Amino acid sequence: MKIAVIHGSTRENGNTEYLTYHAIPKEKGTHIYLRNHFVQPIIDERHDPQGFHHVEDDHEKLITQMLEHDIIVFATPIYWYSMSGPMKLFIDRWSQIMKTPKFSHFREELKHKQAYLIAVGGDNPRVKGLPLVQQFNYICQFYGMTFSGYVIGKASRPGEMKNDHAALEAATLLLPPLL
Amino acid sequence: MKIAVIHGSTRENGNTEYLTYHAIPKEKGTHIYLRNHFVQPIIDERHDPQGFHHVEDDHEKLITQMLEHDIIVFATPIYWYSMSGPMKLFIDRWSQIMKTPKFSHFREELKHKQAYLIAVGGDNPRVKGLPLVQQFNYICQFYGMTFSGYVIGKASRPGEMKNDHAALEAATLLLPPLL
Amino acid sequence: MKIAVIHGSTRENGNTEYLTYHAIPKEKGTHIYLRNHFVQPIIDERHDPQGFHHVEDDHEKLITQMLEHDIIVFATPIYWYSMSGPMKLFIDRWSQIMKTPKFSHFREELKHKQAYLIAVGGDNPRVKGLPLVQQFNYICQFYGMTFSGYVIGKASRPGEMKNDHAALEAATLLLPPLL
Amino acid sequence: MKIAVIHGSTRENGNTEYLTYHAIPKEKGTHIYLRNHFVQPIIDERHDPQGFHHVEDDHEKLITQMLEHDIIVFATPIYWYSMSGPMKLFIDRWSQIMKTPKFSHFREELKHKQAYLIAVGGDNPRVKGLPLVQQFNYICQFYGMTFSGYVIGKASRPGEMKNDHAALEAATLLLPPLL
Repeated sequence: MKIAVIHGSTRENGNTEYLTYHAIPKEKGTHIYLRNHFVQPIIDERHDPQGFHHVEDDHEKLITQMLEHDIIVFATPIYWYSMSGPMKLFIDRWSQIMKTPKFSHFREELKHKQAYLIAVGGDNPRVKGLPLVQQFNYICQFYGMTFSGYVIGKASRPGEMKNDHAALEAATLLLPPLL
Repeated sequence: MKIAVIHGSTRENGNTEYLTYHAIPKEKGTHIYLRNHFVQPIIDERHDPQGFHHVEDDHEKLITQMLEHDIIVFATPIYWYSMSGPMKLFIDRWSQIMKTPKFSHFREELKHKQAYLIAVGGDNPRVKGLPLVQQFNYICQFYGMTFSGYVIGKASRPGEMKNDHAALEAATLLLPPLL
Repeated sequence: MKIAVIHGSTRENGNTEYLTYHAIPKEKGTHIYLRNHFVQPIIDERHDPQGFHHVEDDHEKLITQMLEHDIIVFATPIYWYSMSGPMKLFIDRWSQIMKTPKFSHFREELKHKQAYLIAVGGDNPRVKGLPLVQQFNYICQFYGMTFSGYVIGKASRPGEMKNDHAALEAATLLLPPLL
Repeated sequence: MKIAVIHGSTRENGNTEYLTYHAIPKEKGTHIYLRNHFVQPIIDERHDPQGFHHVEDDHEKLITQMLEHDIIVFATPIYWYSMSGPMKLFIDRWSQIMKTPKFSHFREELKHKQAYLIAVGGDNPRVKGLPLVQQFNYICQFYGMTFSGYVIGKASRPGEMKNDHAALEAATLLLPPLL
């Protein structure tokens, strides 16, 4: 079982990363940091006669890499009660991927994958982060992907994540031990 | 009462716009189309010693314009069960605005404004769009802004919005008639 | 299409009823007022060797009546952000119905029905009533029943419902006009 | 810090109890089993000229007992995606308590208490139980009570709870260790 972690943080070594490494240590998975890649916002051309225009950025490369794994962990700080902008841009573009001939297998492949969500916020995230969890669940449902679990951590200032012992413990138990 | 409408659609004259004009006709408010402006994703530098770097884009101009109004209507298509990428980028950057000296009054000003949400999606949006409503509510709570109402429309293909009579009717009743 | 309305109010002619009659006038459906019937709380005996004990109350009679209709409207005041106690007792006992031989067709029959929710609350119900909507959606999903729509009204004191024009209008549009 | 646990299960030694004892062992708190007490459904008489009729049951006694503690843990199985009927009846009646002269301090007292939620369900409870969490949060907000945490366990058949290691671990970490 190969694990890919999609990191949506814009800050290096931040709280979300800290929590995420408790679930998937750096050497146990392929860690993809969206901040190091260029992804354009989607332009909705689903209904254009000519379809989507090709976009020059890193999105297709990232999708290709993601699809090589069995387990996909989405690790995002909570920005304004939902996923970070970079994570949103990355996922929005899936609408284009589904219409891209070379990714015609995209939806079918996701059906066989497991998804996890790791999210960290500062403002009562264990309650106010729940709509984000529900949205990830809907995304997984759309693709028939298994939503296997999530952990929500509470932290705001740098380094604060280490104080949320319950979340750290939950993170270590998030993925099945055999992995 | 001056009304600003922030449009998050990436497609011109799409379903979300169609529904939105039932609530706020073109001539009744200031309609801002984010797709016509350039807004960079936030980089979280809240905790950097030097603070946020200045960003060369249209965000400050848009915020200035938004603040000149009493009522702010957020009109967004539902992309993957949450707001569109452009809308997310626009709101994410509020974290930077709050740290920008010339916008030191930002949070205080929002406290006196009313917000509305208009959202349109194709996949059972009246249920699957509810987390998005909850997130907008949290955003409003954070700023002490009044969340005065929302309408969710169901549409996917171009032109389909005109069939959701209940949503169109709800949109016409969304803002108080005196406006 | 025969319509049954299950009323969960404990007060006669209250706000929830007022809103509900805008959707389904008294003469257009079978109106069942749970407050006029005796329904015991469930005792979870699903896993008892001898199964559920027979309960002497009106529940089976109500279920029989409900099943004679094609559309089921659940009309409940919002008590503490969820359905009223009487409505909860009525639905909780469905777990027993599913294990009752004479109702072995229960789940299959619900699959062919449409459900609507009408809910009225006093404390920001259009936002704080959303978890209730989500729960009804899950109930419908469990049974494969179509969750066709909902209306949330805002009212607390007797008579106040008549002021929520948007909800009254939405109620009149809730069911398809052909009914 | 005195802890009261309100058990909403209708089955003795069920999965919810099993999980709950990992958070609050039997000897560490006052365990109140609603199934052993008689609580009538509320009749909404808030707006009656004569107010609420006195109800002959155990509710006031239970409230008195609850108020003698600093921490209140609500432990409920998830019935149809929300709290159990007995738990709902118990909480619905708080509306009456608030109008009962001898409990005029009720709302003020809750303001100083901490609440926890422990919930167990069989159908994807970590996602489908989230509306229940949100409702508890709203209840706590209403009273100004601190909603200090929650754990959701997955179990359906008797004994199954012991397999949800992550939830059991989370339960042991739910309350602060000093208690």
